[in-house]
Amino acid sequence: MSPSDVIAELASLLVSGGIKVVDLTRTLEPETPVLQLPPEMGWGESWPFSMEEISKYDDRGPAWYWNNIKCGEHTGTHFDAPIHWVTGKDHENHATDTLPADRFVAPAFVIDAVAEAAADPDFLMSVDFIKAWEKTHGEITPGAWVLYRTDWSKKTDNADYLNIREDGGHTPGWAPATVEFLARERNVIGVGVETVGTDAGIAPTQDPMFPCHNLMHGANKCGLASLCNLDQLPPTGALLIAPPLKIKNGSGSPARVLALVPARKY
Amino acid sequence: MSPSDVIAELASLLVSGGIKVVDLTRTLEPETPVLQLPPEMGWGESWPFSMEEISKYDDRGPAWYWNNIKCGEHTGTHFDAPIHWVTGKDHENHATDTLPADRFVAPAFVIDAVAEAAADPDFLMSVDFIKAWEKTHGEITPGAWVLYRTDWSKKTDNADYLNIREDGGHTPGWAPATVEFLARERNVIGVGVETVGTDAGIAPTQDPMFPCHNLMHGANKCGLASLCNLDQLPPTGALLIAPPLKIKNGSGSPARVLALVPARKY
Ligand SMILES: [Mn+2]
Ligand SMILES: [Mn+2]
Repeated sequence: MSPSDVIAELASLLVSGGIKVVDLTRTLEPETPVLQLPPEMGWGESWPFSMEEISKYDDRGPAWYWNNIKCGEHTGTHFDAPIHWVTGKDHENHATDTLPADRFVAPAFVIDAVAEAAADPDFLMSVDFIKAWEKTHGEITPGAWVLYRTDWSKKTDNADYLNIREDGGHTPGWAPATVEFLARERNVIGVGVETVGTDAGIAPTQDPMFPCHNLMHGANKCGLASLCNLDQLPPTGALLIAPPLKIKNGSGSPARVLALVPARKY
Repeated sequence: MSPSDVIAELASLLVSGGIKVVDLTRTLEPETPVLQLPPEMGWGESWPFSMEEISKYDDRGPAWYWNNIKCGEHTGTHFDAPIHWVTGKDHENHATDTLPADRFVAPAFVIDAVAEAAADPDFLMSVDFIKAWEKTHGEITPGAWVLYRTDWSKKTDNADYLNIREDGGHTPGWAPATVEFLARERNVIGVGVETVGTDAGIAPTQDPMFPCHNLMHGANKCGLASLCNLDQLPPTGALLIAPPLKIKNGSGSPARVLALVPARKY
């Protein structure tokens, strides 16, 4: 089939319902959970989402309703660009406005660690875990996104979702070697997670600190955080659509993340 | 070909370069032009884009760079949802968070009116103009986006781009009957334009006022404004990706708009 025919066939299957669009995005609202940094460090804080009504079919605009909005680049379901981390700062085309657009549409490999994350909120995915997954589903191909399914997004209470105790956060993440493996040996575009950030809750105590940010962005790779509905994706065969806003020199951006999947049960 | 095979083939063509991703999005920055409303009306104003640096690998965040952002829902390249207009206010699933996700990935029909817009900045596309286009390129199929190519986005000076004179704005748009035709007889998802809003500069003087907003949203259809790079799309055969942020009850949203096209010259 020619490229034109493939696009036409995809379009036709979208209209007929043979391919469906799965929304992997949380709703952006003031209650949307955001990363909590330890206040005693004096670090700058990212805004939660907020909106101000400009008009709603009233004397501020008789026929129209619209809002102004505020948030952090890393609020809600969002994209992390390599420039976000100091290890990625010297790459070329490493910000939301300069990343090549083909990074935003690519295959997704969805690795299920639901049982492990339920048993241990500090679960760190290992290289062996991925290799065992590949034995069943096939090797992760270059230029793909790896999505880390934990069902963590099903925690509707923000305190449970962020899971911060006196000694810090407790949410699943990555062993540093796993990040290196995915970036270097599988040449992924990036990784996506259901938790509030791409790293584990205990990432400040890992070596290196925040290994997913440090090593993934160091390799000029990207991230996606606060995804949901990963349980609606097949392990392989979904096409991920994850376009950040084209913010000039942006470190990331809230994003509407979608996936195209066969409508039939896989 | 099965839906799975079509997705796999598309993914493979994206990796091999047989299909490319065209970015139809303007960069979001403080200079990004925004809709100017007549100040004497007392209508509420939409914010331009702005950002505040939270940290840049410094004592506000030693290893990371990130920003907080502010803008209007209708700032820069953006999506208009039916709830944006009073005529669309009573539809179901008419806001950025409730629109069905399949509206965000659909075929694009690109109608070239570059010569007409250059000759007359007040050019209004007629039904006959579209029917003549269809004679050459085929009928616009249901469930598609219609994109209005004017090369207006090539005006790099904001004053030229907005083209506001003492008597108001002068940028191309639609005759009211054309909007009705596309919404009712071609059952489009919506229309996209290169100008700052989906309506002509002279829309306040049309009957009805702002016909594209009034009639398109009245028919529960959507809009896209401030697109660019439409000259890189074939008249038919592109797949448009136009996902708004999932703002709760949002009237629209800045969006990263992309298109998948065959890499070979059409
Ligand atoms: Mn982030
Ligand atoms: Mn608008």
